[in-house]
Amino acid sequence: MSVIVVGSMAFDAIETPFAKSNKIVGGAATYIAWSASNFTKPIQQISVVGGDFPQEELDMLEARGVQMEGVQRKKDKKSFFWSGKYHMDMNTRDTLETQLNVLEDFEPVVPASYQGADILMLGNLSPAVQLSVIEQLKEPPKLIVLDTMNFWMDTAMPELEKVLKEVDVLLVNDSEARQLSAQYSLVRAAREIMKMGPKFLVIKKGEHGALLFHGDHVFFAPALPLDEVFDPTGAGDTFAGGFVGYLDSTKDFSFEGMKSAIIIGSAIASFCVEKFGTTRLRELTKNTIDERVQQFVELVNFDIALV
Amino acid sequence: MSVIVVGSMAFDAIETPFAKSNKIVGGAATYIAWSASNFTKPIQQISVVGGDFPQEELDMLEARGVQMEGVQRKKDKKSFFWSGKYHMDMNTRDTLETQLNVLEDFEPVVPASYQGADILMLGNLSPAVQLSVIEQLKEPPKLIVLDTMNFWMDTAMPELEKVLKEVDVLLVNDSEARQLSAQYSLVRAAREIMKMGPKFLVIKKGEHGALLFHGDHVFFAPALPLDEVFDPTGAGDTFAGGFVGYLDSTKDFSFEGMKSAIIIGSAIASFCVEKFGTTRLRELTKNTIDERVQQFVELVNFDIALV
Repeated sequence: MSVIVVGSMAFDAIETPFAKSNKIVGGAATYIAWSASNFTKPIQQISVVGGDFPQEELDMLEARGVQMEGVQRKKDKKSFFWSGKYHMDMNTRDTLETQLNVLEDFEPVVPASYQGADILMLGNLSPAVQLSVIEQLKEPPKLIVLDTMNFWMDTAMPELEKVLKEVDVLLVNDSEARQLSAQYSLVRAAREIMKMGPKFLVIKKGEHGALLFHGDHVFFAPALPLDEVFDPTGAGDTFAGGFVGYLDSTKDFSFEGMKSAIIIGSAIASFCVEKFGTTRLRELTKNTIDERVQQFVELVNFDIALV
Repeated sequence: MSVIVVGSMAFDAIETPFAKSNKIVGGAATYIAWSASNFTKPIQQISVVGGDFPQEELDMLEARGVQMEGVQRKKDKKSFFWSGKYHMDMNTRDTLETQLNVLEDFEPVVPASYQGADILMLGNLSPAVQLSVIEQLKEPPKLIVLDTMNFWMDTAMPELEKVLKEVDVLLVNDSEARQLSAQYSLVRAAREIMKMGPKFLVIKKGEHGALLFHGDHVFFAPALPLDEVFDPTGAGDTFAGGFVGYLDSTKDFSFEGMKSAIIIGSAIASFCVEKFGTTRLRELTKNTIDERVQQFVELVNFDIALV
């Protein structure tokens, strides 16, 4: 069993109304790997970094069962860099700067040793790169999970439509689901999006939790009400990592199985926002995670007597 | 067992992006009574109407076990009137017109036959009116539930603070909780608000569900994802009505009991938004409600195996 993770490994600089980070390690695939490696191994990483990316970060991940054969290092180039500033609500943000750098001409190569993976997790990247990875797999994975964003809907919709046809699960946020479907009601949006390919749709609503749609079924996973959201960066990727990591450990890709995986994803994402970057994710133990999952159980658990 | 309901019985005129109503029957106490009377009787109404309010509406409610002795009719005056226009998101609205009319000098009188009620439901009205009802009760009710809004926080905060000291449960929406506590985080807001008096706090988040706080405990009730929200007017009052009606039928005022009551309130509020005004609430049967509650159970029910 293994999970291939495709995505950026990069630098971020983050401003919130309460704090400001230096240039710190980030990137979708980084968060996904830190998160998923709590539940399964190996994670098989596909990404590209510049000469400036700390080898120590790759070594720490390798020690957790994250394979780096698919991570290209372009010594004479710089890693992808994003900087952004969150608004007071911590749900919306402005991009201050984006430097594509190594991502500009990234051509992913799937190592022979990665062939036969059960799950392919396509983190947020250009649909062309995502499609290239799908096409390089000799045997189709049992489950393909896709994360994408409004930027690709605006600039690469034809390629994104091709990718959507290939995937089993799509993860987007509520405004992206509305944009993709041209429907305001999330129930209607889900119906339209599932016609585009995905059999399962997860709509992430940040502090308001997440919805899972599958055919006529719907499941609502809460977000843990938090005292403080310190830095939301990477929460969606951390969610995705917990989701696929847990699914790889159970191999239950049914609606029921996905429900559990979403709770796990939500639980681990709730840690991510407590500190800058991946800091909090590095500290987690099995006990800490189990306790948090138990909080989710208590958060929504009720007994009802119909009178 | 009985529930005293205090609030407006009035007229509304509603515009949504999709439809426009005539002047129709509305008012917090009207919605609360329609909703609560599905679960318990008698409901003991305290309100004031003008000569223009349809006797038929009062008769229909009476037939459901809603007592009208505490409803004053001012024949030579007009009923309270509100008109508003919803934005595209159906969560925010602009008030187009407010005519206080009979509410201008409303002095509630608690009939002798209402004394000894188990629950007092204070619907959204001026804190002075709410306080007057509390003071007229010879025996304190087992449970006092308060609904209020930002308008009273802006204009009558000293009186509102007095009412808050007397109540067991406060119902507000998320922006009102933030305003009342001067805290952005709802967890911190809840902590501050519970210092003001209420032992239980329900924060309503519309399509994002509701949170129940009590001491260090928190419970998250989802909203049912809907194809269409036709008219959100009265959903909060309908929620309150289901909440107190169910609690009066179970008499379980513990945290566990409140959790169930919030699910019932959410379920019945999900009907309210399907048609204009109280139309949908008039059609409900026990079976329809039970089926909807079952949908809520399925919406959040999950099993998790920690690996």
